[in-house]
Amino acid sequence: MNNADRRQRRRATRTDVARLANVSTAVVSYVFNNGPRAVAPATSERVREAAKLLNYHPNSTARALRTGYSKMLGVIVPDSSNPFSAGIYDELQTVAMERGYSVLFMNVRSDPDLENKAIKQLLERNVDAIFLSSSRSYAQLSMAHLEESRFVFMDQPHRVANAKSVSTDFFNAGLTATRHLIEHRHSSVDMLFGGSPDDRTDARIQGWYEAHQNANLPAGRIRQAFFTREGGYHATLDLIDSGRPPRAIFAGSDMEALGAMRALHERGQRIPEDVAIVSFDGTVDSLYTWPQLTTMQQNTKEIAGCAIKAALTPNEVPDVQIIKADLVIRDSCGC
Amino acid sequence: MNNADRRQRRRATRTDVARLANVSTAVVSYVFNNGPRAVAPATSERVREAAKLLNYHPNSTARALRTGYSKMLGVIVPDSSNPFSAGIYDELQTVAMERGYSVLFMNVRSDPDLENKAIKQLLERNVDAIFLSSSRSYAQLSMAHLEESRFVFMDQPHRVANAKSVSTDFFNAGLTATRHLIEHRHSSVDMLFGGSPDDRTDARIQGWYEAHQNANLPAGRIRQAFFTREGGYHATLDLIDSGRPPRAIFAGSDMEALGAMRALHERGQRIPEDVAIVSFDGTVDSLYTWPQLTTMQQNTKEIAGCAIKAALTPNEVPDVQIIKADLVIRDSCGC
Repeated sequence: MNNADRRQRRRATRTDVARLANVSTAVVSYVFNNGPRAVAPATSERVREAAKLLNYHPNSTARALRTGYSKMLGVIVPDSSNPFSAGIYDELQTVAMERGYSVLFMNVRSDPDLENKAIKQLLERNVDAIFLSSSRSYAQLSMAHLEESRFVFMDQPHRVANAKSVSTDFFNAGLTATRHLIEHRHSSVDMLFGGSPDDRTDARIQGWYEAHQNANLPAGRIRQAFFTREGGYHATLDLIDSGRPPRAIFAGSDMEALGAMRALHERGQRIPEDVAIVSFDGTVDSLYTWPQLTTMQQNTKEIAGCAIKAALTPNEVPDVQIIKADLVIRDSCGC
Repeated sequence: MNNADRRQRRRATRTDVARLANVSTAVVSYVFNNGPRAVAPATSERVREAAKLLNYHPNSTARALRTGYSKMLGVIVPDSSNPFSAGIYDELQTVAMERGYSVLFMNVRSDPDLENKAIKQLLERNVDAIFLSSSRSYAQLSMAHLEESRFVFMDQPHRVANAKSVSTDFFNAGLTATRHLIEHRHSSVDMLFGGSPDDRTDARIQGWYEAHQNANLPAGRIRQAFFTREGGYHATLDLIDSGRPPRAIFAGSDMEALGAMRALHERGQRIPEDVAIVSFDGTVDSLYTWPQLTTMQQNTKEIAGCAIKAALTPNEVPDVQIIKADLVIRDSCGC
């Protein structure tokens, strides 16, 4: 920014307001912080009038420096074009705003380097907590981050040292979705899954596997890609073109299900007649596919509420909070 | 936050680092700010080692107070579940991060009260600029906001006093989309549009109208709802059930097109055989509908680049920057 811009954009300070209202700067603070000392109504009115004329806004930067708390929260998501990220973010922001917190939101495009940079920037901003939906597994996360006590992991159903975690019950979600397809007389269910290909620890996979075990069936095939529309599209094309097209698919995310549906449409496979699908997330997009998706709906409101509690009152909640997902039956499963 | 939490979460300060490294606090500053004075390599190494041990992060709050610039940017969008918002945000964030800025992102759910609250909070945070995609027209925006010189309007193709604006060329986009459907021998094109029902000043509407005029055709019907999947769904049901089903639709956003397609599928109307569609946005979702959407693609990268320039070097760019949208032909138009 050049000097001309700086001059043009100089902002009114507390001192300017004090001068115009003919009071001390302390009185200006009392008016905007509602205390600690009382101010006579007429004086308060004069201060607010002066602030309005000068277009003055009380500065939260100074308060942050004084208190050591920035009243900012950081949110890191792997893919902001996924309406599930948007939904969680939206709920977090609603609760945060009500309590006077602002939210720094960072999309890191499933890129570990970008994720590290985002974490560093949030720590420098002195945020009071970081809500992290990592594209990496716990084991892959840099231990440096975990020395910080400000993290709330948004998708780790197990305990993370020195941090809080909040997660949907991935295991039971995977079990329920797969069992539902098995009850539709499918003898095996293929699975689409995001995350890194060397990581099969996600509990959705375990639930999917267990559902086959419980029914004395061999587990279907698993295809791993990103949790994206494109990932699901290519993984499904791969299954169809394998010579043994899928009959039933459990998609680890709505976005992958969207991709799977495009692949099936393109190959002339009917849904659910030729291929049945149950997905996972329950985003708004699952209502606008054709046919509509049967899906395991995550409870974004409850997840966000638990995450905020974990961040702001850590001593009052358990280290791990697990939230149930609900099977929402629509048309893609064949019901 | 209770006292136990506060104690547990106390963060290392510059003073702690200085003490451990046996240097003055000024030297710690020089190391982390790369100046203004040089520090001997061995000393610098000792300071960084101490910072690492104590898990110290230099505090951007103090810098903000010193310089008067927070190096934060605010972004306000009406609907974060719209991948177009996510796309713009993503591009803004990428450029911002490269320059050391952080972004405060606020979804205001097309709610004017929430929009006002978000603006107030961003001003209190002392952000250096606010990128505003308002659900309201310019005329409806509170004049109080416009006394601020920090606004960049993201969807106002005309000049806004005391502010910068960046916008897609809505007029030509509406004209091109509608003309394309007319060239498919449709004698009139119905339009789905978001925004408030009493506001027909959007240039997309003017372009749509002009395309009919140019072809000596009477303009089709217009249905206004929110720029959402649900808005497009109900508006299209309304058209279908009017007794005169639509033959061609120009949807003012991809999200409304998604809703329109659901309504058409539910009513057994084939796309494009019975009803042709061209939409507006070119989000990733337009690739995953069935059939795929022909759409006016907005250039999110260029929009974000122009917006950042408008915010950070306002004297070097015109007050209004208009960016072209491109017709991307896929399957929903009947080509």
